[in-house]
Amino acid sequence: MKTRERIIHVSLELFNIFGEPNVTTLQIADELDISPGNLYYHYKNKTEIIVELFGRYEHEITELLDMPDDADFSVEDYWLSLHLVFECIAKYRFLYKDLVNILQRYEKIRFKFKKILQKKFDATQKICLSLKRQEILLATNAELEALCRNIVLISTYWPSFDMLGHIGSDSDIDLAKGVYQVMSAVAPHLRPEDKALLMEVSEQYI
Amino acid sequence: MKTRERIIHVSLELFNIFGEPNVTTLQIADELDISPGNLYYHYKNKTEIIVELFGRYEHEITELLDMPDDADFSVEDYWLSLHLVFECIAKYRFLYKDLVNILQRYEKIRFKFKKILQKKFDATQKICLSLKRQEILLATNAELEALCRNIVLISTYWPSFDMLGHIGSDSDIDLAKGVYQVMSAVAPHLRPEDKALLMEVSEQYI
Repeated sequence: MKTRERIIHVSLELFNIFGEPNVTTLQIADELDISPGNLYYHYKNKTEIIVELFGRYEHEITELLDMPDDADFSVEDYWLSLHLVFECIAKYRFLYKDLVNILQRYEKIRFKFKKILQKKFDATQKICLSLKRQEILLATNAELEALCRNIVLISTYWPSFDMLGHIGSDSDIDLAKGVYQVMSAVAPHLRPEDKALLMEVSEQYI
Repeated sequence: MKTRERIIHVSLELFNIFGEPNVTTLQIADELDISPGNLYYHYKNKTEIIVELFGRYEHEITELLDMPDDADFSVEDYWLSLHLVFECIAKYRFLYKDLVNILQRYEKIRFKFKKILQKKFDATQKICLSLKRQEILLATNAELEALCRNIVLISTYWPSFDMLGHIGSDSDIDLAKGVYQVMSAVAPHLRPEDKALLMEVSEQYI
C-alpha cells in the first residue's frame, strides 16, 4: 500500500477507536512509523485527511442510495439495501460518533452531510412508495412521510445510540440490531402476511 | 438572583447557543460582567458548572419519568408526558447536541446518563404495557420492546437531528414535531379508532 493510502487507512482506524477530536496528526504519523514531515507531504493537516475520508464516505453511500425510480422493491430488497447502508455508516462511524461537533468544526462537509441526509430520505421514500404501490405497505401520505423521517433518524443515530452502551471501548456497532430497529418501524405498516414474515426473519437475524 | 445562580443561568444559555466545547469560563465571566476570580470562587472550573447543570437536568427528568406502576394511561396522558420530557430535553439541549463527546470527556455524568436512558426506556414500557393491557395498543412483547427502544432513540436524538437542519444558528428545536415523530411510531400499533383520533390531533398540533 502506498504511504498516502496507508495514512487514510490508519487515520480511519484511529478516528473510529478514539474519536476524531482526540487524535492528532502526530499520533497518526507515530502509528505509521513515518516522520511528521512525510505525513505533511501527503496531507497538510488533519482537516485534509478528514475531507478525504468524508469524500470516500460520500461516494460509497451515494452509490448505495441511488435507487431506480420505478422498480418494484420487495421487503427483502429493502432489508439488504438497509444492511449495506448500515455497513457503510459503521465503516465511517467516527463521523456519526461526534456528528454535531464535527459538522460544527468542518464547514466544508456540513453542507455535503445535509445533502446525504436528504438523499437518505429520498431513497427511503422511493422504497416505501414502491411498497405502497404494490399494496405491501399501507399508509397515508402523512404517515409515510413521518415513517421515512423516523427511518432516517434511526439509521443516522443508531451507531451513536448503540455506542452509548459501551463508551470508551471500541466494541463493534451491532449492525444487525440497527437494521432490526428500522424494520420494526416499518413492520406495523405492512400487510398482515408480510408483517408476520418480516418479524419471523427479523428474530432469526438478530 | 444570586451570583451562583446567575452563573448557572448564563452558562446554560451560552452552552445551548454555542455548544459546550466552544464556551470558556472567561466568556461566562465576561457575559456576567464579573471577574474570573469571582466566578472561580463559586465554581472552580467548567466541569463543576457542567456537573451542577447535569444534576438539575437529572433531577427534573427523573421526576417526569417517575410513572405509577399500575395506572391506566390514555393516549392523551402519554402525549402530555412526552411533551414535558421534550421540554426538559430542550432546556438542557447542549447535552444532546454533543452527546457522545460530552459523555467521553465527563466520566462523572456518563454513568448517570446511561441510568437516565434506562429510566426513559422503563417509563415508555410502563405506558405502552398499560395501553396494551387496556387493548388500546396491539403488539407482541418483541414488537413492544422494539417500539420502546425506537421511542427512546427518537426522543434522545430528535434535538440533534432537528438541529442538523440549522447548525450554526440557535433556532429553537421544533418540540412539537419531535412529539409528532414519536407518536407516528406508536400510531400504527393502536386500535383503528384510537389511531384515527391520534393522527387527527397530531396534524393540528404540528
